Amino acid sequence: MPVIKGVYRAYSSSANLGPGFDVMAVALNAYHDDVEVKVTTPGSRHVEVRFYGEFSTGIAPEKSTVMLAAKELLSRTGICADVEVSVTKGIPVGKGLGSSGASAAGIVRALNDLLGLELGESEEVLIAGEGERASAGVPHYDNVAASLHGWLTIVFKGRPGIEVRSYRVRATFVIAAPNLATPPSKTEVMRSVIPRVVNLGDVVANQGNLAALVAGLLLGDLALAGKGMEDHIVVPARAKYIPCFYWARDAAMNAGALGFTLSGAGPSTIALVPSEAVAKEVSRAVKEAYKACGISADVVIARPAPGVLRID
Amino acid sequence: MPVIKGVYRAYSSSANLGPGFDVMAVALNAYHDDVEVKVTTPGSRHVEVRFYGEFSTGIAPEKSTVMLAAKELLSRTGICADVEVSVTKGIPVGKGLGSSGASAAGIVRALNDLLGLELGESEEVLIAGEGERASAGVPHYDNVAASLHGWLTIVFKGRPGIEVRSYRVRATFVIAAPNLATPPSKTEVMRSVIPRVVNLGDVVANQGNLAALVAGLLLGDLALAGKGMEDHIVVPARAKYIPCFYWARDAAMNAGALGFTLSGAGPSTIALVPSEAVAKEVSRAVKEAYKACGISADVVIARPAPGVLRID
Repeated sequence: MPVIKGVYRAYSSSANLGPGFDVMAVALNAYHDDVEVKVTTPGSRHVEVRFYGEFSTGIAPEKSTVMLAAKELLSRTGICADVEVSVTKGIPVGKGLGSSGASAAGIVRALNDLLGLELGESEEVLIAGEGERASAGVPHYDNVAASLHGWLTIVFKGRPGIEVRSYRVRATFVIAAPNLATPPSKTEVMRSVIPRVVNLGDVVANQGNLAALVAGLLLGDLALAGKGMEDHIVVPARAKYIPCFYWARDAAMNAGALGFTLSGAGPSTIALVPSEAVAKEVSRAVKEAYKACGISADVVIARPAPGVLRID
Repeated sequence: MPVIKGVYRAYSSSANLGPGFDVMAVALNAYHDDVEVKVTTPGSRHVEVRFYGEFSTGIAPEKSTVMLAAKELLSRTGICADVEVSVTKGIPVGKGLGSSGASAAGIVRALNDLLGLELGESEEVLIAGEGERASAGVPHYDNVAASLHGWLTIVFKGRPGIEVRSYRVRATFVIAAPNLATPPSKTEVMRSVIPRVVNLGDVVANQGNLAALVAGLLLGDLALAGKGMEDHIVVPARAKYIPCFYWARDAAMNAGALGFTLSGAGPSTIALVPSEAVAKEVSRAVKEAYKACGISADVVIARPAPGVLRID
């Protein structure tokens, strides 16, 4: 009975970047998950998932994005294999850093690769996005797209399905993950606070910023990208529920950040900075702002990361 | 009493390009207005405007964008000058080709230049945008930004005011202007049919397309840009009022267009094409589609144009 093995590294990601709700994300080298996969063929589509490492506490393997994504892949492709997965969680969970998406990206790429399935970019994202039902209640594709394909990713509606593009961009970010107790259904809750209808004026304001953000990141005009990070729809609704968000934002901007917003559904925040030197200033300022607010925060300087890598 | 003179050429433009309502436009070499300006200083801010040429019929000079923009500029800058303007209208009026915006762009650049005012890019756009009240009832900045600064322009909210960026892009378009009687308040009417509130799902769909459109145009991935030209908010609401829009769209797409949408508030349409050869095919197909629908249409192949040029 043939057995194949591999270990795959999937990076953390930050979705939305302000106005790009559900369509944009950036993979970040701040954190990563390692996904070790053993595939046995033929098999009966039995999937076993175990979590290890610093951030594995409290993850229910049966309900994890890894389990959902693996089962989705096997049923969609009709492959009869048994799969054993060991995930070493290096990405903090429930912080808005794409932790669940990275694990899903890792297993999907691993199975695509080990089974020689030749699934396309969009198909990988669709399957891994189904795994996100586990954390968000609905599939969403921004984080998995970034972890799968790396760098800056854009997801948009195709005919049918979705389309994904990934662009290598140069930028430096400061990620702050406040140490707050977040409910397990955090992403679902933070999706529920978003308005279901939006005023046209806010749509126009957001779209202007999104165009500036995309142009700025793709052309390396980071001052422009920073201005474009201001969101008029999702962040104002969510930020109310994020302790000390505005304190951290003001501290970051005063310390020289070009833009500042929530990372995904939060509570982590992401600042775009013009240089390594400013990154250090902003890191210190944000950490102090959280501290003055009574919250400790893990602050790291991060850069755009590649997609899933096979490391063994 | 010093008298200064100059002649300025301002090109037509196509706003929105699908999902970029009120934030994006492209200047097009399809048509242009020539704005001849004579400034006398000191003066009492008397402005006289005359229109000439093929498309001058029915324009009321006192209520024109040129008059509004000139008066706005003089009152904002506090300059005491008398201004005589002769506009040779080469851009069809009321077709969604930025005719009123081009004239406003021309007079604003002319006065900025001739009076040595050194108004910045955004300020020029703000003043010319005020002129657009004449045709749209509210100021809007997309067409004037494109005619003033050329190429592909993005307008977004600044703090305060607005910010404008212009990017030189390479692309070929087919512009079709159907010969329909349009009411003088066409733009105002076509703004009134747009929904005032938008479902979040449509916002996300639109924003994904907008990101694809910007990335595609800036990076020269025209197939991607074409996909991004599909709008989910404004065009579906307007297209119902545009005779034969869907017939023309299907004909263009079947003939090889990469994307197809309304030009501004219509009734003109704009198709993005991959080559000169396809441009000819699409031109013929669109013309025939309108003809089969009982409408004659002026169809031209156009490329991104520069901003206002001094020609004399």
